[in-house]
Amino acid sequence: MNKIKPQIPKGFRDFLPPQKVTRQHVIDTIRNVFELFGFEPLETPALEYASILEGKYGEEGEKLIYKFDDRGGRKVALRYDLTIPLSRVIAMYPALLKPFKCYQISPVWRADKPQKGRFREFWQCDADIVGSESMFADAEVITTIYHILKALNFKQFKIKINNRKLLNGIAQSLGFQVEKISSLLRIIDKLEKKGIEGIKDEMLKQGFQKENIDNILELFNITSGNTVDLLDLKNRFSDSVLVPEGIQELEELFSHLSSMDVDSNCYCFDLSLARGLDYYTGPIFETTVDEPKIGSISGGGRYDNLIGMFSDTDFPATGSSFGLERIITVMEELNIAPSHTTTTEVLMTLFSPDMHKDSLRVASLLRSSGIKTEVYFKHNKLKKQLTYASNKGIPFVIIEGPDEKKDNNVILRNMIKGIQKAVAFDDLAFTIKQELSEL
Amino acid sequence: MNKIKPQIPKGFRDFLPPQKVTRQHVIDTIRNVFELFGFEPLETPALEYASILEGKYGEEGEKLIYKFDDRGGRKVALRYDLTIPLSRVIAMYPALLKPFKCYQISPVWRADKPQKGRFREFWQCDADIVGSESMFADAEVITTIYHILKALNFKQFKIKINNRKLLNGIAQSLGFQVEKISSLLRIIDKLEKKGIEGIKDEMLKQGFQKENIDNILELFNITSGNTVDLLDLKNRFSDSVLVPEGIQELEELFSHLSSMDVDSNCYCFDLSLARGLDYYTGPIFETTVDEPKIGSISGGGRYDNLIGMFSDTDFPATGSSFGLERIITVMEELNIAPSHTTTTEVLMTLFSPDMHKDSLRVASLLRSSGIKTEVYFKHNKLKKQLTYASNKGIPFVIIEGPDEKKDNNVILRNMIKGIQKAVAFDDLAFTIKQELSEL
Repeated sequence: MNKIKPQIPKGFRDFLPPQKVTRQHVIDTIRNVFELFGFEPLETPALEYASILEGKYGEEGEKLIYKFDDRGGRKVALRYDLTIPLSRVIAMYPALLKPFKCYQISPVWRADKPQKGRFREFWQCDADIVGSESMFADAEVITTIYHILKALNFKQFKIKINNRKLLNGIAQSLGFQVEKISSLLRIIDKLEKKGIEGIKDEMLKQGFQKENIDNILELFNITSGNTVDLLDLKNRFSDSVLVPEGIQELEELFSHLSSMDVDSNCYCFDLSLARGLDYYTGPIFETTVDEPKIGSISGGGRYDNLIGMFSDTDFPATGSSFGLERIITVMEELNIAPSHTTTTEVLMTLFSPDMHKDSLRVASLLRSSGIKTEVYFKHNKLKKQLTYASNKGIPFVIIEGPDEKKDNNVILRNMIKGIQKAVAFDDLAFTIKQELSEL
Repeated sequence: MNKIKPQIPKGFRDFLPPQKVTRQHVIDTIRNVFELFGFEPLETPALEYASILEGKYGEEGEKLIYKFDDRGGRKVALRYDLTIPLSRVIAMYPALLKPFKCYQISPVWRADKPQKGRFREFWQCDADIVGSESMFADAEVITTIYHILKALNFKQFKIKINNRKLLNGIAQSLGFQVEKISSLLRIIDKLEKKGIEGIKDEMLKQGFQKENIDNILELFNITSGNTVDLLDLKNRFSDSVLVPEGIQELEELFSHLSSMDVDSNCYCFDLSLARGLDYYTGPIFETTVDEPKIGSISGGGRYDNLIGMFSDTDFPATGSSFGLERIITVMEELNIAPSHTTTTEVLMTLFSPDMHKDSLRVASLLRSSGIKTEVYFKHNKLKKQLTYASNKGIPFVIIEGPDEKKDNNVILRNMIKGIQKAVAFDDLAFTIKQELSEL
């Protein structure tokens, strides 16, 4: 029979145990903080009707949706993000208690051009609060982001915060047409990537008036850095309706963040933060790190009108999404990813074929004490078994020969330190747990 | 704008928090036992090239694969199970250390006719050992199944065990043609569902000879129940090559299960167990429960020739798959599923608008002690806040008014018992943890 070449589609990945151990560690940490903050778990299907996803992600996003006809000829699509499915859920189950605080940790799919750090299948970790218009909700989402990054040992990060009402109000006051503000914001969103001149060119190309462009870009120049004065903006745009509303929201939000003990070095107002998606209506936020240069590692904001696309009853909502792959990339570059490459803690070796039962007895003891234990099945030379443990990254190895059996003890070898000692059988689980905690 | 009707495709499901909490509990339990037994986590993509999956699942399975052309015109397919992707992984990364013990907990997709208990998206939990021909490997897979069901509080279950070498040997000795044994086994696999007469009819319909059929069905009659004698089978088929080999494997396997302290009431030899898939080569096993009637909750076996479909180097392999949905269905019917419907442990109420900061202070304290805490944002009547907690299933509520603030304590209300008491602020986390452990 012809062999089938083992390969996977471009932009998709296998996670072998060492990588999956790191991913699982990050997912578990994020999940734990989400739950500490009262978010409950939610899961939606990988496949949605295409009509649910279409028309939500802008022109560029639209092209990246994996769509196909199912066997019944219905148009279906792979989940593109977690926010639209959540909005669909809220509309579909009106009896869900509000406020509804939930999290989702799931893969999404985009038929993007695969490139460094960009994949066609990647995981998002979202937390959302639906049914509260309070700035406490937004503050809690941001506080959750802060605590997750702290829990993952991030030292340097900045949560940039802005407000769509403020941006819309400014743009309107400066003479931009309401219906063109979406595309204006999408250009502003590229400021960091393209620079002032770059986005100016693009604005001109899209037919915005030079005077309006100069006015809005001047604002970014005076407000660059973290010392922008919301009061000054309020005075400049005192005749606007939206600007004071946006500023009022931001002031409340910053006050709550302070009450929630979020380190003020870790967040800032950033007038140039725009976010690409159309559906934001209030506060928006995005987390970046100085090193490595990788774009944002979290992004989100308030989307008070999105659920109304699926329902006659609308609900205010706010939330944020973490990109799992970017978080992991940063952790690996900064050397703050966990160093272990396996979940297994102990390899129980096989001394000789007649000692199988003794190996199993030790393994049973350890497993019943919660210690993750692999038993070596094959009677290979001890050296080969030790090499196996070492290559896999298993930190402890146990050896039991006839002498140890007679004395009711075993040899416990610490593979990291390369030292070993005899340990009484009855003390074994305790000793290993103690040494594991010191690793 | 027209509303988009919020709905999901048939056979797909949303898991709202109460359901997802149960799922997560089962997944965490399974994952923990997998890791205790030294299985390491593995993840493969949702999409594979269609050629990887085609021709592996038999005629019926073939029709159920979700296939489509990606935007580059390549034929891709949604993962149908976790065994073929694992086999592809083993072939693709020849440097992976053997034995390779891994687990996968992931959704799979089948375009099946949706019906009670059958879905188009469902989760499998697989554990596999690749690179060991030892019956220890099979015994360890079975022991892992046993410990998972114990950890999930299953009281009555039976792991049925048989061997494909034995079945093949018997069928050959009884005169069945080698190339027709696969379809014979697929019919035998339906014994429990269709009864002896039912499968006899089907065998006749498929053109098997009456004499052969009578001979093989007679065997099932004498061996029904758990008292079948492997020795008797060995004597009956003493001229076969395969039968003694299969029996030898089974004897070793049962001996290892006994060494591994698996309760002998929980497993048995069952000659009529055949398993539907073609690729098994040695021991096969399947777990059933008496109540509810739901088919098998786990199934697996040895597949020594499967990896060779993708590689010039073949590897012996064995493993088993749990069906998450069936496990949960059984747990719910038997009332052994966890009773909590939320992950959240405490609702911190808001006494009055000016006490927001105090609420946040309590929540911070609890969260930093690892207690999952939701803060109520809105100043609703206390009764409404208590109803919210009660409807969500949050077991504890904290109330702090000006009096409590003055005395530096709070009111802790146990929503399950319906009683409340004053607790000093400094003792709060400790008290809640203790009461949580008693729930």
